[in-house]
Amino acid sequence: MVQRILYDLAAADPAVRFSPYCWRAKMALAHKGLAVETRPWRFTEREALAFSGQGRVPVLVDGDEVVHDSFAIALYLEDAYPDAPSLFGGEGGQALARFVAAFADTVLNPGLSRLVVADIWAALAPEDQAYFRESREARYGGMRLEDVQADRETRVEAFRASLAPLRLVLKTQPYLAGEAPAYADYAVFGGFQWVRAISAFDPLATDDPVHAWRERLLDRFGGLARAAPRAASAS
Amino acid sequence: MVQRILYDLAAADPAVRFSPYCWRAKMALAHKGLAVETRPWRFTEREALAFSGQGRVPVLVDGDEVVHDSFAIALYLEDAYPDAPSLFGGEGGQALARFVAAFADTVLNPGLSRLVVADIWAALAPEDQAYFRESREARYGGMRLEDVQADRETRVEAFRASLAPLRLVLKTQPYLAGEAPAYADYAVFGGFQWVRAISAFDPLATDDPVHAWRERLLDRFGGLARAAPRAASAS
Repeated sequence: MVQRILYDLAAADPAVRFSPYCWRAKMALAHKGLAVETRPWRFTEREALAFSGQGRVPVLVDGDEVVHDSFAIALYLEDAYPDAPSLFGGEGGQALARFVAAFADTVLNPGLSRLVVADIWAALAPEDQAYFRESREARYGGMRLEDVQADRETRVEAFRASLAPLRLVLKTQPYLAGEAPAYADYAVFGGFQWVRAISAFDPLATDDPVHAWRERLLDRFGGLARAAPRAASAS
Repeated sequence: MVQRILYDLAAADPAVRFSPYCWRAKMALAHKGLAVETRPWRFTEREALAFSGQGRVPVLVDGDEVVHDSFAIALYLEDAYPDAPSLFGGEGGQALARFVAAFADTVLNPGLSRLVVADIWAALAPEDQAYFRESREARYGGMRLEDVQADRETRVEAFRASLAPLRLVLKTQPYLAGEAPAYADYAVFGGFQWVRAISAFDPLATDDPVHAWRERLLDRFGGLARAAPRAASAS
């Protein structure tokens, strides 16, 4: 049996895995029916990833293959395991999954970050906290992380409005990828799972079709995402 | 030969066709290599569409078939003309094209509208102007159309920022649908062609990858969109 390892961003509690990009990879592996050992990794352990030629997770080691970047991992899995259920549903679906991932990268995840960025910091291992605070406060023009998320109860309305494209699609079909979920769904779901892992704040209203879609994905693969440990501060 | 007619929204000059949703249909027909007679239609001519069971364009009449709604027209063409180039590139591409269209419907087109809505009014036939002003000013909370677009030189920066998902994808591939354009591209392009038809205001900077993509689509199908007549106010 092939040794398959995913380097997976961990909080102070090594069981809490919160990276939205690692969740994309874990859902893609589950979609392909592939078992994987997820190895906890922290922001400050760059050297541990040196073998991959770069310093960020997710990194997948699949036997002799080493693949980094969540979209590259999905492309690799689709190519290496063609007999397992498709992650893209053909060439057209593969090209457009990039757009859905780009929406998550540029709209969803930055929006979520502003709602929970201090909660992320609080859940991190001490050795990661200094790095995280410095790099993220620089992104927010020097604003303290606690101040960034302080107005989230009002800001969440604008965040919810930014999900209009998701909501419109989920009125006509149960998943972004159609009747069954695929990589495009996981690319978006990763953001919500990131928040779920480290914060008690729920960015979605319970009557939102996006909420119902998230519930279905939490249940997928025997409840893989729902069963994932959450930081103490998230419960 | 089958009689094929598209009811196509027209400005005061009947040669100026500006609906973003009709442009989706026209690009989809061209993609399938299908000739079509485009019949000018105005907002106030609801009765002329009564045969379609509703009152909005585009409406495609293809022999005995009558199809309305731009996405439904694309699905119809894909199904009725399976040997012509695919509009979706498979099931996965079809499902995700809905997301791209939803992005255009909820982000791109509302953003463009705020930049040129008074220019649209100015280009309309007199019998359409009253309807358009009343319905659109209601959408903007009673604000005059001229006031809505008055600050467009500053507002255009936020509009351009909202195109981040398009820009990110177009860094890795020439079209949203991959190496060649397909329906997802036309769903977005329709919005830009709408503005081009009725306004001299260009919402895109010339160094934007989205601008280069739009140029390629203007040239597609022998320059179908580039050659389309523009309102006098647009040139």
